[in-house]
Amino acid sequence: MIIDLTHHLKNGITVYPGTIGPKFETGNTIEKDGFAELNMTMCTHTGTHMDAPSHIIKGARSLDQFPVEKFIGKGAVVDCSEVNSIDLNFLKRQLVNPGDFDFILFYTGWQHKWDTPNYFDPFPTLTTEAVKWLLNFELKALGFDVISVDGMDDPSLPNHHLLLLKEILIIENMANLDRLIGKGFELNCIPLLISNSDGSPVRAFARIF
Amino acid sequence: MIIDLTHHLKNGITVYPGTIGPKFETGNTIEKDGFAELNMTMCTHTGTHMDAPSHIIKGARSLDQFPVEKFIGKGAVVDCSEVNSIDLNFLKRQLVNPGDFDFILFYTGWQHKWDTPNYFDPFPTLTTEAVKWLLNFELKALGFDVISVDGMDDPSLPNHHLLLLKEILIIENMANLDRLIGKGFELNCIPLLISNSDGSPVRAFARIF
Repeated sequence: MIIDLTHHLKNGITVYPGTIGPKFETGNTIEKDGFAELNMTMCTHTGTHMDAPSHIIKGARSLDQFPVEKFIGKGAVVDCSEVNSIDLNFLKRQLVNPGDFDFILFYTGWQHKWDTPNYFDPFPTLTTEAVKWLLNFELKALGFDVISVDGMDDPSLPNHHLLLLKEILIIENMANLDRLIGKGFELNCIPLLISNSDGSPVRAFARIF
Repeated sequence: MIIDLTHHLKNGITVYPGTIGPKFETGNTIEKDGFAELNMTMCTHTGTHMDAPSHIIKGARSLDQFPVEKFIGKGAVVDCSEVNSIDLNFLKRQLVNPGDFDFILFYTGWQHKWDTPNYFDPFPTLTTEAVKWLLNFELKALGFDVISVDGMDDPSLPNHHLLLLKEILIIENMANLDRLIGKGFELNCIPLLISNSDGSPVRAFARIF
């Protein structure tokens, strides 16, 4: 069974403050051209998307510099819907051995607030201590159903820096993570092959074992 | 092993005549904003991409109306590099039972001409008879290393119509198909989740059995 973990891309969806919103417009039409095509404008971090190290760190790798294997692997979801902060004690209770997985995904419940003003309500974030513990494992990426791995009140983006320096990629604005709680699955989260991509919208999904 | 079947998306790549070329521009920067993001404009049929029925047929389904399962399955490559036309006799010799597969991919060699003017040299196309034979099988999509399933000299797009009416999707501008000849593989060709998507750029790849 496959579970889609992606929000729809369309006009008017929520974007990170200070970035452009996506625009989908009629380009070619069946009447005029014999075929229909949309013209679309968006930034590389629109909707459900992935962050490359080069998103934050000057001279670091972009997504097109990783092989496809980096974007597929065994995943686990941590249910964070009952906590205000994802701290080390909580994380160690939920994840006995993060090294068993390639991807750790964090369900906060914010996915249900997607495309409402409440999506920017203060959401649970990983503490620095929790992030530093995760750096000890060979993880491919962390994924979240919120707009950022850092709180909206900290423009220095400390969690982004710690993770991306270690080339642990970040997936934001995921959907349907609640449907994976307690399940074994393979995550597929494949970016477009964009030259020098600091990020990419993705169609993320899980294949349940 | 995974083989990437995708051309890079960047400024100046080949596009279908009468459609817009992609544009990647600096949006946010680390210096100014603390994070780097590209702003990108392209049509839904840019680079390695997939066509939905709604690309050609008024009121037909768009890609977001299919489940992810439609985009994953067993594939085979037909080597068409020595023929000028992909006719029924040739195809029956190459493919004893298309029903064994979800995806049939056609290697013409044009992938090596990508991003040169010669990409528009007349390329081998499926004859109407060959397409009609393929319609008998439960195929998810056909894929090609050329820019269109129809010849550039026929604006009525007959092969597009026949295939998309039957909801056999079309993948165009694929790369590295020569590396799959004679191999068993699972094809992954997952479009973005764009509302009303008549098409989508894809990161197509094969997992060799």
